[in-house]
Amino acid sequence: MIKIEDVAKLAEVSSSTVSRALTRPDMVAPSTRERVIRAAHQLGYQPNKLARGLRKQQSHLLGLMVTDILAPFHATLAKGVQDAAEKHGYVVFLFNTDEQPEKEERYLKELQSHLPEGLLIVPTSKTRQNLGIVGNLTVIELDRTSGTPGVHSVLVDNVTGARGAVEHLIKLGHRRIGMVAGPHSVTTALERLEGYKQALLSAGLQVQEELIATGDHKEEGGYRATQTLLSLPPKLRPTALFVGNSEMAAGAVLAVRDLHLNIPNQLSLISFDDTRWARLMQPALSVVAQPAYDLGYIACETLISLLKRDKPVPTTTLRLNTELIIRQSTAPR
Amino acid sequence: MIKIEDVAKLAEVSSSTVSRALTRPDMVAPSTRERVIRAAHQLGYQPNKLARGLRKQQSHLLGLMVTDILAPFHATLAKGVQDAAEKHGYVVFLFNTDEQPEKEERYLKELQSHLPEGLLIVPTSKTRQNLGIVGNLTVIELDRTSGTPGVHSVLVDNVTGARGAVEHLIKLGHRRIGMVAGPHSVTTALERLEGYKQALLSAGLQVQEELIATGDHKEEGGYRATQTLLSLPPKLRPTALFVGNSEMAAGAVLAVRDLHLNIPNQLSLISFDDTRWARLMQPALSVVAQPAYDLGYIACETLISLLKRDKPVPTTTLRLNTELIIRQSTAPR
Repeated sequence: MIKIEDVAKLAEVSSSTVSRALTRPDMVAPSTRERVIRAAHQLGYQPNKLARGLRKQQSHLLGLMVTDILAPFHATLAKGVQDAAEKHGYVVFLFNTDEQPEKEERYLKELQSHLPEGLLIVPTSKTRQNLGIVGNLTVIELDRTSGTPGVHSVLVDNVTGARGAVEHLIKLGHRRIGMVAGPHSVTTALERLEGYKQALLSAGLQVQEELIATGDHKEEGGYRATQTLLSLPPKLRPTALFVGNSEMAAGAVLAVRDLHLNIPNQLSLISFDDTRWARLMQPALSVVAQPAYDLGYIACETLISLLKRDKPVPTTTLRLNTELIIRQSTAPR
Repeated sequence: MIKIEDVAKLAEVSSSTVSRALTRPDMVAPSTRERVIRAAHQLGYQPNKLARGLRKQQSHLLGLMVTDILAPFHATLAKGVQDAAEKHGYVVFLFNTDEQPEKEERYLKELQSHLPEGLLIVPTSKTRQNLGIVGNLTVIELDRTSGTPGVHSVLVDNVTGARGAVEHLIKLGHRRIGMVAGPHSVTTALERLEGYKQALLSAGLQVQEELIATGDHKEEGGYRATQTLLSLPPKLRPTALFVGNSEMAAGAVLAVRDLHLNIPNQLSLISFDDTRWARLMQPALSVVAQPAYDLGYIACETLISLLKRDKPVPTTTLRLNTELIIRQSTAPR
């Protein structure tokens, strides 16, 4: 086993300087610190920081797992988490699970072995089982819930947001309103579908199953689901579409173009989630904007404040509001 | 100091089971492993994995630092790195430096204390100094170079890519071609500017400084730089613009719209970097597409293959080609 004295010898400093360089870096000259770190690394000596953080349970390290780093929603959420962590002197290790429970499991094991103080996670379909890996770590779920007891969550009010989008279409005179919904394994997808149904029912309209197509929350699934809905016989075809997330909305726009339908004259289109392309495309897309940055920021602040308390607190669920942004892709029927 | 026996006692298993649970998780039942990890965590015992990884220098952990996680280029590159790492059984810790050398420094220190095997980094303006923190760790620079001796790099052929974009504009009959360039501290920005100049000079055209405006690689800087160029007196105003990255191109599109100019009739526009909005906007944007995913994938494969060699290898620089994609935003003058 490599000792602190070995590092001191190689770095040509005293043992107490090694200790200080590794635990209070601000107290030694940068060049000395560098020499010590190099010597420690060369010998395979474990910087004290880990051991210290371990004993005090204060690694000032947080884990963040998102399910789709390529989607602007997740990248923006990650930025919000990072900015809040920075403010409090925490460092965030970011992982992308690609919606795959196996990756989530592997990353949770890896993260756990680096002794984080807390975890922020956008759950996959198996998060409830996987969270066993991190034991009694303080966990906040973002955007979705896994239903794990004792886990706090910071979410978006998806039901009200979706309901607002569909009510907007109803006000414009649409009666045959289709929905491209996300996968049933994702709570946000179910909530948005619920909001769609609520809006129809409270306007005295029927929920018609043939007007609901399910995608995979990705562009390709949105393309296929939209094609399915728009291939209905003319009398049954929807005059307006509500799409459950922005990735599927990109597919919907491409499907509508391939069918040579005009937006908004022949089809009104509105999507959950705002993006740069939604603003830049013409006609610009009406959307239900999610507070992605705030979601990440608030979730991280909540986590850090929980870490600072010394008593257990009741599990909390925070819901953030969405904003209906009406642009040019929705028009009177 | 907590010993393995303490963990064994709390978890109600033998010491050898604790050891196995922490070092060969596949050899124990998941429920046993969980109990051991919980006990280890509760007592503050450091999982053996770290110590083992330390001794053998095989943590199977890589660090990745990008400079702007909100830009699709960086998110896509990160996905490429992750997929290659997965294939080889490595886990990637992802960090976003926001182009800030101070964040880069902090994250490098944090990463180093977790004993990574290698680092992939999109450099900031101070990476050359900051890399001192990671000592003799194997490092691959992606997309840009910091000029640090001994560091391998996987880059895009920016000069040829930019040159192709401007030659396309020249072939369309444009003579007054403006450029929205990125910051001088970023090597890719300088290379793209060089490509722009080469294309003009080899066509017998002059490089006119008033046709070059510098942005910050972000939307806002692109907006302002474009406004500056398009506010020139009509006779001096460019009839075509080449924009150095996609974030600035989004700003350029908005500036052109605010000035009520028609693309491509009154202004041809072409940008470095392809994005979803560039494909979805109308007229769709002509671009120089970068192989962002491949860049990340190949860089990570290169890093892992370097880690597997036992002899030092000469420093390598790999350049990937771009692809000129002509859509509807560029037209004859």
